[in-house]
Amino acid sequence: MQNKDIQLIMPELRSEIGLRLQKLLPLIGEAGLDAVLLASNANVFYMAGRFFRGYVYVNREGRLIFFLIRPNCFHADGEEVIAIRKPELIPAALQQLGIAMPEKLGLETEALSYSDVERLRRIFPDAQLGNASEVMKKCRMTKTPFELRLMREDGQHQMAAYSKISRLYKRDMTDVELQVEIERILRLEGNLGFLRTSGNLMEINLGSVISGENADAPSPYDFAMGGAGVSPALPCGANGDIMKTGQTVMIDMNGCFNGWQTDMTRVWTIGDVPPLARVAHECSRRILRELEKLARPGVEVCELYERAHAIVEEEGLESYFMGHRQQAAFIGHGVGIELNEAPAITPKCRVKLLENMTLAIEPKFVIPGVGAVGVENTYVVTPDGLDNMTPFPEELTDLL
Amino acid sequence: MQNKDIQLIMPELRSEIGLRLQKLLPLIGEAGLDAVLLASNANVFYMAGRFFRGYVYVNREGRLIFFLIRPNCFHADGEEVIAIRKPELIPAALQQLGIAMPEKLGLETEALSYSDVERLRRIFPDAQLGNASEVMKKCRMTKTPFELRLMREDGQHQMAAYSKISRLYKRDMTDVELQVEIERILRLEGNLGFLRTSGNLMEINLGSVISGENADAPSPYDFAMGGAGVSPALPCGANGDIMKTGQTVMIDMNGCFNGWQTDMTRVWTIGDVPPLARVAHECSRRILRELEKLARPGVEVCELYERAHAIVEEEGLESYFMGHRQQAAFIGHGVGIELNEAPAITPKCRVKLLENMTLAIEPKFVIPGVGAVGVENTYVVTPDGLDNMTPFPEELTDLL
Repeated sequence: MQNKDIQLIMPELRSEIGLRLQKLLPLIGEAGLDAVLLASNANVFYMAGRFFRGYVYVNREGRLIFFLIRPNCFHADGEEVIAIRKPELIPAALQQLGIAMPEKLGLETEALSYSDVERLRRIFPDAQLGNASEVMKKCRMTKTPFELRLMREDGQHQMAAYSKISRLYKRDMTDVELQVEIERILRLEGNLGFLRTSGNLMEINLGSVISGENADAPSPYDFAMGGAGVSPALPCGANGDIMKTGQTVMIDMNGCFNGWQTDMTRVWTIGDVPPLARVAHECSRRILRELEKLARPGVEVCELYERAHAIVEEEGLESYFMGHRQQAAFIGHGVGIELNEAPAITPKCRVKLLENMTLAIEPKFVIPGVGAVGVENTYVVTPDGLDNMTPFPEELTDLL
Repeated sequence: MQNKDIQLIMPELRSEIGLRLQKLLPLIGEAGLDAVLLASNANVFYMAGRFFRGYVYVNREGRLIFFLIRPNCFHADGEEVIAIRKPELIPAALQQLGIAMPEKLGLETEALSYSDVERLRRIFPDAQLGNASEVMKKCRMTKTPFELRLMREDGQHQMAAYSKISRLYKRDMTDVELQVEIERILRLEGNLGFLRTSGNLMEINLGSVISGENADAPSPYDFAMGGAGVSPALPCGANGDIMKTGQTVMIDMNGCFNGWQTDMTRVWTIGDVPPLARVAHECSRRILRELEKLARPGVEVCELYERAHAIVEEEGLESYFMGHRQQAAFIGHGVGIELNEAPAITPKCRVKLLENMTLAIEPKFVIPGVGAVGVENTYVVTPDGLDNMTPFPEELTDLL
């Protein structure tokens, strides 16, 4: 997958892209679209196997065309690759290929800017506008064997890095200092140093290390946990405090090593922590064990949330669940090329689980004054339940 | 500026926000707008002094209202802060404040998604749509004294980190390994580990370290230099090759320590490099010296490009300028909260320089087989020319 071999990627990936196309075509039809024209970084990467500057056109008949601006960044042969200077040249190119103009065209209304979508609309003035973001979300919700292999590789790398965390701690370290050393270990392990997220509500650096009171700082972002951050420009995660005895340290760092990613959280302790923290941590693990069995194809996503919440209620831990001062009504999310993919595991999500969906499940608790506890694993849905792609020891581990 | 003191930020920043508002109001008028409603992360941060989840409303009369979703993330008193559950409640809130509905409303059509803009439009069904992205770009193009102070602090931190780079190098290191050690040094120096860019054509990790042949790998992104990266998911920057004797190493790493940022490039060498590389590097420095005098308020941005290009032609270095296999027709850009702010220093940009504009100027050359050379500094425009916020030794420095 080294980028030096870009000219080789297309042939290698051809059958893989074919599989993705097979998943996409029925969804284009179901949405009542004739074609989708994609331009967001995540979807261009998904459909082409590499990011390039340009557009991906897919019609319901299965024609897949790559329109490249700056064609020298992408070396692929074959009729499906066409160099253009600007998107305004797409209709003429389609015509030359004998491809009918779409009557209903899906554009990425959730991922592209208003002005980018308007520009593309003007290029197809007779086409009705559809939502290609929704179609692509559904398509990417389940993964191909190739994608699952890459995500399992992510998990292996992420676990290898996490296995070194205990050695990185030094007494009187701040949470930021610990995070920086974890970032280095991740990067040396091959982490791309880059977190692809969807939407504008997930700004973060390379992840989240939260400890003590900071775990209870409410976040303006859509992350499971908050943290005040060190700057009002990025109010998220570690806040620069020295980590103290009696606190937990929740580590939820980037797992992107190849364009896909796993999402994984573990918790360390600084010396002894109160029993409530241990009880809540074990409750998180109990939830995961139960959901691992419950989550099979056909089950509605909200059932996962409900089961988790029922366990939390049974143990009387509601007021700490998914935050304390500010609580989030979700326990996980799809994950893949983007950290926050569909579905979101919320009380209202009626999406039915499908085989080969990948889910990050993260039942967490905030214990005031102590920190956050809980475990997050990335799973793939199989006929027998969830298969864990991040099988790493889940117990609280003392850093002292 | 520690985030723990969020409740203190608003009073402290009140006069600063007032200055920004003074710059913004005439621009709202010039654009023929009655008001702007802002929701992008960068502009919310700019207008409020901190990022929060919600909306900023500014009308041409100077009323500034913060509409907060999740109000517990933002502790500010005063009539300008209103908690809402959803943006649909904004018109009623405005009415209650006795504020007239805008007839022409500016929305961030370049920064928000199509669906986000459409949602806001439906909330103001009678308002004509204007482009608030354009207005905010102009407003943020010049900086207040407070912003300049923060950018100078960025420069100090970035220079402190760069001064340690020579010590980080070890023989037979890959470019990625060197970059990881620089990232660590930057982060320990207070770097937020986060690069805020505008648009979807600037994906990167914490910066760019390019060496040897990789400097000439064309980029699908809008960066001055390319680099193939290590993954087709992020084809940008270091490619994992071992850096070899006779190559240059161009280092252009993140300068964001407080929400603003400086942009700064220096070049190191591995042993002796060919005379052409040294000549081109000195040409870059000559260009900077000339532009530092030329760039005064009133001068058109394209004149900077033209002068630079004339020097390059005089020295016969055109075929290496701003790339070799793929050349970029620009030599710099505005910089501030976002890395790529207005104006872009291109042959076509007729924008007139203004006092307190901040510009990153980066005349660079790619020498095939050797690497990239050239210097980038971040400057502020003063009546006497450019003032350098990154005054760090510019000479090629040998890593051996």
